[in-house]
Amino acid sequence: MEAYLDNSATTFVTESVRNEVVRAMETDFGNPSSQHMKGVEAEQIVRCSREMIASTLKCSEKEIFFTSGGTEANNWAIVGGAMANRRRGMHLITTAVEHASVLMPMQYLEQQGFRVTYLPVDRMGHVDPEDLRKALRNDTILVSMMQVNNEVGAIEPVEEAASIIKAFSPDILFHVDAVQSYGKYAIRPGRRNIDLLSVSGHKLHGPKGTGFLYIREKTKINPLILGGGQQKGMRSGTDNVPGIAGMARAAADCYDHLEENTQHLKMLRDRLREGLMKMDRVVLHSGCGEESAVHILNASFVGVRSEVMLHALEEKGIYVSAGSACSSNKKLPVSNVLIQLGMPAEEQESALRFSFSRFNTAEEVDYTLEEIGKLLPVLRRFTRH
Amino acid sequence: MEAYLDNSATTFVTESVRNEVVRAMETDFGNPSSQHMKGVEAEQIVRCSREMIASTLKCSEKEIFFTSGGTEANNWAIVGGAMANRRRGMHLITTAVEHASVLMPMQYLEQQGFRVTYLPVDRMGHVDPEDLRKALRNDTILVSMMQVNNEVGAIEPVEEAASIIKAFSPDILFHVDAVQSYGKYAIRPGRRNIDLLSVSGHKLHGPKGTGFLYIREKTKINPLILGGGQQKGMRSGTDNVPGIAGMARAAADCYDHLEENTQHLKMLRDRLREGLMKMDRVVLHSGCGEESAVHILNASFVGVRSEVMLHALEEKGIYVSAGSACSSNKKLPVSNVLIQLGMPAEEQESALRFSFSRFNTAEEVDYTLEEIGKLLPVLRRFTRH
Repeated sequence: MEAYLDNSATTFVTESVRNEVVRAMETDFGNPSSQHMKGVEAEQIVRCSREMIASTLKCSEKEIFFTSGGTEANNWAIVGGAMANRRRGMHLITTAVEHASVLMPMQYLEQQGFRVTYLPVDRMGHVDPEDLRKALRNDTILVSMMQVNNEVGAIEPVEEAASIIKAFSPDILFHVDAVQSYGKYAIRPGRRNIDLLSVSGHKLHGPKGTGFLYIREKTKINPLILGGGQQKGMRSGTDNVPGIAGMARAAADCYDHLEENTQHLKMLRDRLREGLMKMDRVVLHSGCGEESAVHILNASFVGVRSEVMLHALEEKGIYVSAGSACSSNKKLPVSNVLIQLGMPAEEQESALRFSFSRFNTAEEVDYTLEEIGKLLPVLRRFTRH
Repeated sequence: MEAYLDNSATTFVTESVRNEVVRAMETDFGNPSSQHMKGVEAEQIVRCSREMIASTLKCSEKEIFFTSGGTEANNWAIVGGAMANRRRGMHLITTAVEHASVLMPMQYLEQQGFRVTYLPVDRMGHVDPEDLRKALRNDTILVSMMQVNNEVGAIEPVEEAASIIKAFSPDILFHVDAVQSYGKYAIRPGRRNIDLLSVSGHKLHGPKGTGFLYIREKTKINPLILGGGQQKGMRSGTDNVPGIAGMARAAADCYDHLEENTQHLKMLRDRLREGLMKMDRVVLHSGCGEESAVHILNASFVGVRSEVMLHALEEKGIYVSAGSACSSNKKLPVSNVLIQLGMPAEEQESALRFSFSRFNTAEEVDYTLEEIGKLLPVLRRFTRH
């Protein structure tokens, strides 16, 4: 049996997505900027894809800008947003548990003279909205907060944050990294006072190399990539038509059965959760209520180092993650997020992330629990020697 | 019959490329940054692709950095190169006929306080190396020159430019936009003193959304996109494994039969050229010698506006371009490059670009000539009324 439980790292591409990609590579392969029919056909694919994605966010298709992925979208939102508004102030706010594609641009901006406040989190990875309220200043121009933490699945108080920010000043840009939440949750950036929202295609069974940035109308932001003027001059470069078509198909497939998918994911997570809770010295870092994502479960198998368990499970065809796979710093023993949670060293060193897709099954969870149950005493005994 | 002669805008994806893309989307779909086998498999695809591409340039695989396309590669080379070296000077040199993805970043840098010299071109689009020699200054830090002009096919004196630049100062970075030349010509950046070289995948039957920047070892350049630290921290974001695999296959397919392909492209271009030369009031803007690319032919059909001929040909299944399709400024009546060539207005307004791929045939060229021959008198009569 095989159980791929690393869907927050990346997902396989479904048949319906693959068909869209192949069609746009082989048949409708034109350059959307070409004036002839082959170009017009390709442009129609892009337009239709943009509408499909806009409908998942209940926003205007004019607010969707395609990128090469979530990392580019995050870089663009933060650097482009900060640079376009720096005359109003140079203070930025984010959280201590953001993805590296938010934290690194923040550090870059600090080198450019911006000041950044990093909001702390509690033991489950949650930001306290009161801390955000206290951090806001007259020279604050942008706040960036992830909706679902990629390592422990904590759901951050994005709606409350938006209200606090916009009550303080409607001019402050609010960016949400939705890479782990889009496709799993209903998101209404327009209604929720979100100005910028980043999404990655390959986390939802779409192709790698795709993503988008939602930019609310009238939001002041500079482009990151300049050139031929595609996407209203906001993101130049020939549109990745096959990738865009594939991502749109993947997004629609997620949102067409959102409630059903959410229930299924929750069932899988809770089944794993309950099984793990019965085991000795297994510490859960993800909750089961509304403050935790339905598709991510992080747990420490105290006494067994993450990599040891990861590779032992791998031999059984079970694929999980130690820390975030989006970071290529494979040699870092523990992740930044786990440190921020204030976890004891023995829990940090033994933490694993299980992340589900709607294609996972209860049988896969049972198989995983069974194998962990067998492996744990063996590996612990081995470690003691 | 159908004749797609707009291959400098974009190309269809071949079966061998499609197979690579599909395999990496469906089977070997892992995240190369994941520690388990699925990640290792994906990482192997990326490593193998990097080696395949490095072998086409006879460079080290450490010098290849994947991007989302030629536009990102050009932006990165210019902005990243300029920013990393600004302490040594703030003067940049480029040509007046570069692609927008070079010219726009140059304009951006001008807004940041850099000064840019734009070298003029002659009537065939060629830069005079003497002009480059005169433009070099003690505060020059970067020179950017395209190898093949995308609109008229002029081959720029890249080798001579490299010698002039490096004789003046080995510290000046030399960037070559090879988007239209890679896959058609043998390029040896290491031997030719090229520090940075940009390539796009979709111009050579690879997937859209792919490209790479060759960065010569020890070249000082800042990253453009920050985050998880992929590609040695120089270009973060989950590797687009299917795109990378597809581009590598496409590149290898080009270079495996380079000489044969070149001869075929030259035959097609010369066949079209000779046919057009026999027609009344058709002015060629591309030569047939070594100073002109084998796959691009630009010609004016005086008396018939570009769009009119473009759409008339389209009805016959013949696809060509008016100006560069990489620019989405569809409303611009004439392109920047044609203006720079000092072309009379009537030639500017009636110019069309024919661009070939190795899959085009002599029959397609004959069919195109036949249809142009029939259309020209009709359209000219129509225009006179």
